[in-house]
Amino acid sequence: MTVSEIDTLVHLLSKLPALGPRSARRAVLYLLKKKESEMAPLISALQNVYNTVQPCPICGNMDTQTPCTICQDEKRDKSILCVVQDVSDLWALERSHAFKGVYHVLGGVLSALDGIGPEDLKITPLIGKIQAGGINEVLLALPATVDGQTTAHYIAETLEGFPIKISRLSHGIPVGGELDYLDDGTLQTAIKTRRNL
Amino acid sequence: MTVSEIDTLVHLLSKLPALGPRSARRAVLYLLKKKESEMAPLISALQNVYNTVQPCPICGNMDTQTPCTICQDEKRDKSILCVVQDVSDLWALERSHAFKGVYHVLGGVLSALDGIGPEDLKITPLIGKIQAGGINEVLLALPATVDGQTTAHYIAETLEGFPIKISRLSHGIPVGGELDYLDDGTLQTAIKTRRNL
Repeated sequence: MTVSEIDTLVHLLSKLPALGPRSARRAVLYLLKKKESEMAPLISALQNVYNTVQPCPICGNMDTQTPCTICQDEKRDKSILCVVQDVSDLWALERSHAFKGVYHVLGGVLSALDGIGPEDLKITPLIGKIQAGGINEVLLALPATVDGQTTAHYIAETLEGFPIKISRLSHGIPVGGELDYLDDGTLQTAIKTRRNL
Repeated sequence: MTVSEIDTLVHLLSKLPALGPRSARRAVLYLLKKKESEMAPLISALQNVYNTVQPCPICGNMDTQTPCTICQDEKRDKSILCVVQDVSDLWALERSHAFKGVYHVLGGVLSALDGIGPEDLKITPLIGKIQAGGINEVLLALPATVDGQTTAHYIAETLEGFPIKISRLSHGIPVGGELDYLDDGTLQTAIKTRRNL
């Protein structure tokens, strides 16, 4: 029997990325069967995040602190600025523990198809940060897609006059990747940019 | 930057069926970007369901009413009892608008592999309902799997002494289904149980 309260919840859950109406219904039933052990903690976790997490006014990261813990961290190298498409990419880089600079979230990439131009992205604040000084290197950690690389080129051109180094992530074979399963473009890039052992 | 509040939420969401850690993170970012339009309504919908929805003591359906709206409905035919594996199956049958009797949720099916025996299912309350009288037909709407059909046979045997009709859903070609894509078992059943036009 479909009840309005349950229907409302299924409808809202089914709008999440990765969930459709069928999996949303399964999720609701799962939660109803584990009301105390799963549903109550989920509600309070959502409430906590809703109350405490805000976008950082400096970098665009989502955090409970304002500015975010990365921007506040004295140990981070403020002279290297890593430009990412979205907060999810920032989190992925943080999980890798490989980058010790600070970030700038663009909020997307240029896309002729989707009608996203430079004014739709946080490019003006990026230029402002570089004009303010103190930045020696901009690392463009943008997706290796056509739109991502177009955006990287656009930003590199825009920043041409400034006395800063502009870098990008290297392309190649993913660590642990089988050659068999890789696309031709990646293999061609990996051969062209081969390194001496 | 992974924050404890966000991590807690990602962890709880990733336990939902159909979601993993990656899609849970995407869901959290989606909600954070739409705090007022999506996250706030989702929290209140979860809270509503948490506060109002209970399993029906008669049939096992999940509903805001006790007993559930189906068990309370005067227009439903109380003489036909449909036995289903789970609440999700009850909801699926309700969406089809094809059944006008009442339900009995077993809470699973017999499974030698998973160690689920008759005492783990709501079989004793089912016998109790039939002993109480007023039921003419038991429709076993159980999955067409080995475990589902074993459970159907077990229930049919258990109810053998009672003066009631025992039926099951027919097997065959799904409506709109291409013969090409069907498994052999379904095709064999559909041929064996063919009907005259």
